[in-house]
Order: sequence, then C-alpha cells, then structure tokens
Amino acid sequence: MSTLTKADIEALGKRAERMIGELALISAERGRLVRLFLSPEHRMAADLTGRWMKEAGLHVSEDALGTVRGRWGEAPRLLIGSHLDSVIDAGKYDGPLGVVGGILAAEHFIRRGQKPSFGIDVLAFGDEEGSRFPSVLSTSATMAGHFDPATLDLADAKGVTYRRALEAYGKNPAEVSRTAYAPGEAAAYVEMHIEQGPVLEKEGEPLGVVTGIVGQSRLRVSVEGVAGHAGTVPMNLRKDALVGAAEMVLAVERIARAHAGDRMVGTVGRIEALPGAVNIIPARATFTIDLRAMTDRVRRDALMEIKAEAWRIVEARGLQVTFEPFLDTQTTPMDSKLQAALAEAIKGLGHRPIAIPSGAGHDAQMMARLCPSAMLFVRCRGGVSHNPAEYASPHDMGTAIAALIGFIERFAP
Amino acid sequence: MSTLTKADIEALGKRAERMIGELALISAERGRLVRLFLSPEHRMAADLTGRWMKEAGLHVSEDALGTVRGRWGEAPRLLIGSHLDSVIDAGKYDGPLGVVGGILAAEHFIRRGQKPSFGIDVLAFGDEEGSRFPSVLSTSATMAGHFDPATLDLADAKGVTYRRALEAYGKNPAEVSRTAYAPGEAAAYVEMHIEQGPVLEKEGEPLGVVTGIVGQSRLRVSVEGVAGHAGTVPMNLRKDALVGAAEMVLAVERIARAHAGDRMVGTVGRIEALPGAVNIIPARATFTIDLRAMTDRVRRDALMEIKAEAWRIVEARGLQVTFEPFLDTQTTPMDSKLQAALAEAIKGLGHRPIAIPSGAGHDAQMMARLCPSAMLFVRCRGGVSHNPAEYASPHDMGTAIAALIGFIERFAP
Repeated sequence: MSTLTKADIEALGKRAERMIGELALISAERGRLVRLFLSPEHRMAADLTGRWMKEAGLHVSEDALGTVRGRWGEAPRLLIGSHLDSVIDAGKYDGPLGVVGGILAAEHFIRRGQKPSFGIDVLAFGDEEGSRFPSVLSTSATMAGHFDPATLDLADAKGVTYRRALEAYGKNPAEVSRTAYAPGEAAAYVEMHIEQGPVLEKEGEPLGVVTGIVGQSRLRVSVEGVAGHAGTVPMNLRKDALVGAAEMVLAVERIARAHAGDRMVGTVGRIEALPGAVNIIPARATFTIDLRAMTDRVRRDALMEIKAEAWRIVEARGLQVTFEPFLDTQTTPMDSKLQAALAEAIKGLGHRPIAIPSGAGHDAQMMARLCPSAMLFVRCRGGVSHNPAEYASPHDMGTAIAALIGFIERFAP
Repeated sequence: MSTLTKADIEALGKRAERMIGELALISAERGRLVRLFLSPEHRMAADLTGRWMKEAGLHVSEDALGTVRGRWGEAPRLLIGSHLDSVIDAGKYDGPLGVVGGILAAEHFIRRGQKPSFGIDVLAFGDEEGSRFPSVLSTSATMAGHFDPATLDLADAKGVTYRRALEAYGKNPAEVSRTAYAPGEAAAYVEMHIEQGPVLEKEGEPLGVVTGIVGQSRLRVSVEGVAGHAGTVPMNLRKDALVGAAEMVLAVERIARAHAGDRMVGTVGRIEALPGAVNIIPARATFTIDLRAMTDRVRRDALMEIKAEAWRIVEARGLQVTFEPFLDTQTTPMDSKLQAALAEAIKGLGHRPIAIPSGAGHDAQMMARLCPSAMLFVRCRGGVSHNPAEYASPHDMGTAIAALIGFIERFAP
C-alpha cells in the first residue's frame, strides 16, 4: 500500500480547495453561486471538469444527460462521483468536493502507474439538487437504469421543458434510455460529500461513514377552527386553529426527539394562519411536516403518533385536522462491506470513523439501485450547507481524499 | 312612562329589520356587502338615512365629514348614533342597527308628541371600521373635537387621499375643524350595537350594558434562530425559531386565560416561518400579538408576563426575540350613571341586563372624550360579526329599541 505523507495529504487538500474555488467562479449570478442543471454554467463547469479529468489521465466522455465521465481501465468498474449543479445561493463544496476528490484520487493511481484490478469511472452528475426542474437525482437515476420518461416533460420556472433544455445543451433526448450501465459493469459506487450537519464537528473527527440515506415523509397539515373577532370572543369560547397548530408543532419536535436513537428529525418549515389579520382569530392554520428516520417502520410509527396527537389536540379544542402526504421515500442502506472498507481506510489514517446516517438525499441513493454503494462524509463548519457560509477545510478534504485512496487500495470487486 | 306592548316591540323589531335590509342592498359589490367611507355607497346610504330621519320628524343636516345628523329639540342634547360604513364582506347589522334604532326611538317620542326636557341628535358616522383609509373612528373623533389634521393626507388602497375623497364627496376639508360639538352642548352619547361576541347568547339574554371599551396592545414579535438542513441537523443541535414561536403562541393563550376575570383576550392572528421551505429549519419566525383587557394595568402586566415567558423560551432554546409594539390604547370606561340607567330600562322590560366589556372599538370610545357615554349591546347569533352570517333577531332588536326608549324616558341631562 502507498503511504501518503502528511505533506501529500496537505497538498491534496490544497489542490481540492483550489479546484473547488475555480468551479465556484462559474455562476449564473454575480455575488452568489447559482449553477443550474443544463444551464450555460453547467456547460462551463462540465468543460472544466472534463479538462481536469483529461489532465489526470482519464478518458473523458459525456452521457445523454450531460453527466461527465472520466474513465480509466476496464470493467468491472469502481464508480466515484458527485454533482456539479447547485441550489440557489449555494455553498461551493456541496457536490464539487466529491467530483474533485474522485479526480484527484484517480490521478494518484494513474501518476504512480498503480493500475488496480478494476476500472475507475469518475462521474460528475448534473441534477442532484433539483433546483431547476421539479425532478431530483434524475442524472444518477438514469445512469442506474431508472429514468422516468415523464421527466422530459417537466418545465422549469421559465416554462422550458427538460426535453428542450437537453436539446439546447446539445443532447438527444432519444438517447437517454441508452446511457445506463450494463448489469455487472459497475462493481460499486462511492461518493465523497460534505456532511451538511454538525455531527463530525461535534465528534471532533474529519470523516464519517454513511450508514444509509434516510427515508422521508412530507405532509401538509391543515387545522380548521372558527374565525372570530380578536376583541369580542372570550378565550374559553374560541376555536383557534393556530393555537392547535402550535401544539402540533411542539408535538412534532417532542416525538422526533423521543426517537433520537433512530436519528429521527422532524421539521415544520412552513406555517400560515388564515385569514391572517392581526385582529381575527385564525379559522385555519396550515403547516408542513418533514419527518426522517433511519428505519422506515419507526418513521411511519412516529407519523402515526403525530397524527394521534393531532387528533387528541383537535378533539380537546373543537377543531378539525386533515393530513395530505406528498412525499414518502424509503431508507436506502449503504453497503455494509463498503462501509467497513471506508472505516478501515479512515482508521489507516489514524482517525476514528464516525457512523452517520445521511439525512439528505444524494446520488448514492439512486446508484444503490445499480450496485453496492457507499458514502464518505467530510466535516463542514457549523454543519452549515446550502449557504455561502458552507466550509470544509483543505486539511479535512485532503484527509478525505487520502481515505478514498486507501479505500481504492483495499477495494476488490 | 309609556308602556310599549309586546306588539309594539315586535313592530319596532320588524321595522328595524326592514330598514337594515334596505341599507344592506347598498353595496359596492354584488354578492357581498362593501360600504366604504366617502364612497358612492356611503352617499346612497347617507341619503337613505337622511330620508328616514326626515320622515321621523327630525331636522336633517350633514357635517364636513359626511356624518348625518337628525336633530329634534334644543341643547343640552342626548346624542344617539352608530355608523354606516362596513368592513369588506360585512354583515348588515354592525353599525346600521344603532342608526336605525336611534331613528325609531326618536320617532317614538316625536309621534307621541312627548318632547323631553332635552334635545335629541341621531348620528350616522362614516368611518368606524377604518376599512378605506388607515384611519379609524375619525368621524366621531372629529365630532368630539379630536380631529387629527394628518388624517387628511392618509391614502386609500388606490392612492386617493382622505382630503381628495372628502372633496369628491362634496365636502370642504377646511370646514372639518368647525364640526365639533360646543362644550356643554352634548349631555350624553348612547350607542346601540350588536355584541359581536357570544356572551349574551350564552347568558340567554337579549341585551347587555357595556362596562367599557377595552384597551389594546398590539405587537410584532420576531424570533431568531439558526437555519439548517431539515435532514441533517439532529434535534438536539437545532435552534429552530418556529418551535420557540409555537411555545410563545401557547403562552399568549395561557396568560390571557389566566386573566379571564379581567376579560383578557390574547390572539396571534398572523405567523410566518422563514425562509419558509419544507426542508429548512426556520431561522426566523414572526407573529403578531393582539392583547386586550378591561384594566390597563392588568393588560400591561400580562404583556410583561408574555415577554418574560418569551425570554425564558429563547434562553432555553438558544434563540433571540424582539418585540415591536405598534398599538397601545387605553381602556375607555363607560359612564356609570348611564350604565345604571340602561340597566334599569332593560329590567323594566323584564330582562336581566348583562354587564359586558366591549372587546371591539366603537364610536362611543371617541364620544366619551366629549360627554358621558354608554353602549347597549344586542345579542347576535353565534357571536359572529364582520361576516355575512352576522344576525340579530327582529325580536331582540325590537327589545333593544324599547330599552333605548325606556332609557330616554329616564334620562335627565
């Protein structure tokens, strides 16, 4: 096995930082980072990525959805990737770190002439965030053989369809179905990504191994009461929809906290009181629930607990409540052998691998439908992401790339 | 004293119902009642009211703000009034009942030639609801000698100023300051109004005597936390502004309930979570508080309790909170002698007078700055007002007018 010196690791981190900084200059807006799928900025970022891949010694191609691929060696292949698209007003590490890390890790072996017994494909996806179209993870889903043709008819905020955007990007929508890996061609997929949460920082460790990508339930909740004059209806005669909703908001927090062992998180991100006048008792309150946990059964049970609590609240207050689910995705466990291999690689660098579930969705979730998949999380400051304040240190990024190199050394298809 | 028969009372109620129904046909919109200050509909309603006053035997005039006055006899005068303007999508009783009731009560004495030892002025105000301009009670304030000249520059939703609207209504803004009653001219003011609350219905009584018009505090509250990814930030590391705000909403209810003896009511009518995405932990939550009570000191103490509770909540949750008061009006007690006289009149009809604070603002609040003032509340179905479902029965309205007649019989300046 290669032994990377402390200086090697620092150098890798600094190169990653520089490359991520270059990608961050490619934005649709001045002053903030906006890089949407199939946009001119996507094109520029893909070209820059392709140039880096070529310089690293990879053979560069692009699939029908614009995913950039840097290839070295023959099948079976180890796939390493992440994404180039961003949210609106993004941070610069979310996505690019995994692409750049893959290129630098592959380059390490190419430069040293250490050709492994398997091929390596570095992948740069384009539609992870779902910021442009109401699609999400479509480029990795396609590569995993799960493209939904209905996606082509989705329109962005300006009314441009996914199909038209593909054509404008120089792609042929008819070729989309032919871009998936053949069965057996992909031996495994590994993705390096900033944690987007504060666990590693709290643990004082740079790297984590993702145990799985959590399942999600999303619901709209509507509480109905009776409007009234804020000055004339005594407290004991009110049917205030918002006060009932406030109790439910607290119930979501309490129930999610009670399942901390299952890494449950429950969030109310939107709320509204209607008619929404200072001096009118709310007749209606609507809010959203986003509930996630590592175990689907536990999440669904907790959702029933939340509903039972809501029914108890409306019963006591003379209100009514309705629930409208609009998302329900299952948990995607990461491959246990790959997790163990990543943990070994981290230990090999003298660090303690932290097992972390991913509360956010990632391309690995789709790639897991194609082949055994795993994710390496990198500490990010304050757990902040999707925000210009997002930050991962060059040292941590260098350590992560070194762990990826260690993982590749240990990997056997 | 005159003794009204049961048939007289029923007839009065039916006439009131018919007149209120006629006024309700005068609306700016088809299908819902909208009658704004200084609008063409105000003009039509004022003309109809003036015609009724004239038919009743009153001498009709109009002041510089369009308040219609029906006069009988000499000073000192008993003023009886309410308003013709409405909220958007109003009920038909709020305002007109007091105007129509005043006309029918005056007519009772004129027809019988029972001229009291004082004059009677029936008043139909035009700006009680504040639905057109960001002014409120400006017509009664002016009559009480408290017109604020800055009011003339206020603009409605279409950008028309109060001054221009007055001119378009055929009035001379320069004459506004000359419309107030001279000192000593007004002996008392009495206003009949639907309760706009459920107390009388709950007590099973048609009439109430208003003890005072409650003082109000209105505030905007802003809770600051830290935004975060709804999937990646564990529950115990969150600083969720909305969950803190939800605790405060419940604290407002709890504290208001604890002061039920002071008729305290506390309402959160508006709330917002920011940035307001399903999958982002709210960094900020803003909401309004409307707090009212019969005792100003108790209201202000309760406000401090609410603030103390909010500070405790933000301390425990690592949040911050700011309060921005935007309204603070004092309680206006109604004259105790007039209250007693109204109660006697109600008892004289075989009913139990219910003492009720008014949680809503009324023209009586401004007239109390001019002369001793009182209000008679009439039961309304379900306590509903500011709504097309608003309803007072002809029987209750007839009883109210009979009580007003009894009050006039007992009145001595």
